[in-house]
Amino acid sequence: MHIALLGGTGDLGEGLALRWGADTDFDITIGSRDAERATEAADAYVSTLAEHGHDRSLAAATNREAVESADVVVLAVPPYHVADTVEAVADALPMDAIVVSPAVGMQSDEAGLHYHRPGAGSVTAVAADATPDSNPVIGAFHSLPAHKLAALSVDLSLDTLLIGDDDEAKETIDELATAIDGVRALDAGPLANAAEVESMTPLMINLARYNEGLHDLGVTFE
Amino acid sequence: MHIALLGGTGDLGEGLALRWGADTDFDITIGSRDAERATEAADAYVSTLAEHGHDRSLAAATNREAVESADVVVLAVPPYHVADTVEAVADALPMDAIVVSPAVGMQSDEAGLHYHRPGAGSVTAVAADATPDSNPVIGAFHSLPAHKLAALSVDLSLDTLLIGDDDEAKETIDELATAIDGVRALDAGPLANAAEVESMTPLMINLARYNEGLHDLGVTFE
Repeated sequence: MHIALLGGTGDLGEGLALRWGADTDFDITIGSRDAERATEAADAYVSTLAEHGHDRSLAAATNREAVESADVVVLAVPPYHVADTVEAVADALPMDAIVVSPAVGMQSDEAGLHYHRPGAGSVTAVAADATPDSNPVIGAFHSLPAHKLAALSVDLSLDTLLIGDDDEAKETIDELATAIDGVRALDAGPLANAAEVESMTPLMINLARYNEGLHDLGVTFE
Repeated sequence: MHIALLGGTGDLGEGLALRWGADTDFDITIGSRDAERATEAADAYVSTLAEHGHDRSLAAATNREAVESADVVVLAVPPYHVADTVEAVADALPMDAIVVSPAVGMQSDEAGLHYHRPGAGSVTAVAADATPDSNPVIGAFHSLPAHKLAALSVDLSLDTLLIGDDDEAKETIDELATAIDGVRALDAGPLANAAEVESMTPLMINLARYNEGLHDLGVTFE
């Protein structure tokens, strides 16, 4: 399994790289628009993994080079860069490579953060619209707290919700998610249900703001 | 503490009546538009409580009579009846009685349920718009699964999220919520954050539909 983490220098990219680095033997490439930044980040993650007893290499490349041999491409970029990130790599995407969208559009006001629903219906739908038809798109990892993922000494007990129209691709992303110790994947249905999943992220940030002692919240359903 | 459960004959009214009946000594009145239906429901709940070893009386009344001596009025009615339910009891509401809105507007399509955001911004805002200014309005109990509440033999481990602009009223509803064994209340901020809280309900119903073995889902944040 080869995973390309586009925008892999950001918080979620770091969290996923460290957890997959620690808990799996997946091949991981840290992608960035700037190859040098990708290399710096990958080196830093390898050091962190070594400090936690994981002797592990990670590859680094431009986003475009990163996708060339990927089975799964994670768009760990801000929501307003989802479409152009996919478009920049689209003709290098291997046939059948799965594109994963974890981004959420948000607006803030005095009271807190609010879900900003794109015209396409969801950020996952924005990613799907930009992606070639031969590549399935799955929404995932929205509710995983990046800093908690990156803190390798923290035991996790977290759900992530999967959205998409391709059941086989969803099963693959389920395996990727649950390969991280303490993560459970739940099926939230087809792409048309993505807005309800994405809406949880501003809610969780609001809960962290208004409740002392709660930071980097995750969620579990029972 | 006197709680009036308007629409107390429905699923959420039943669940809350049974749990408050079992776990607290609050005075509870089951309200309905039809006094006879309120009495039938209250009698049934008293029987269920007795079966579980709780010797307990519950009052029954029309919605309008139920609010007359209430400290807290819970609008356990469908979202499209929130405004007219409040309007029908508004001039009987005691000064300072707290109005609680647990309802969520939803629409369904083939894929699942979706949050249907009212023009006012949220169902909680609809309730607030219909309520006299002297009565604080708090959104609460949206994410508590009614059937799990009603199953008194089930141990709960659930969060409920509180929304509202009046901190003192919110504190009172926090105490009411956490008086139920196994329920934790979290502050989700001012009324302006209600839509993100209400959006969780269709998500949880979608998760129950797409994941075998998950029914009457609750949620916890950590």
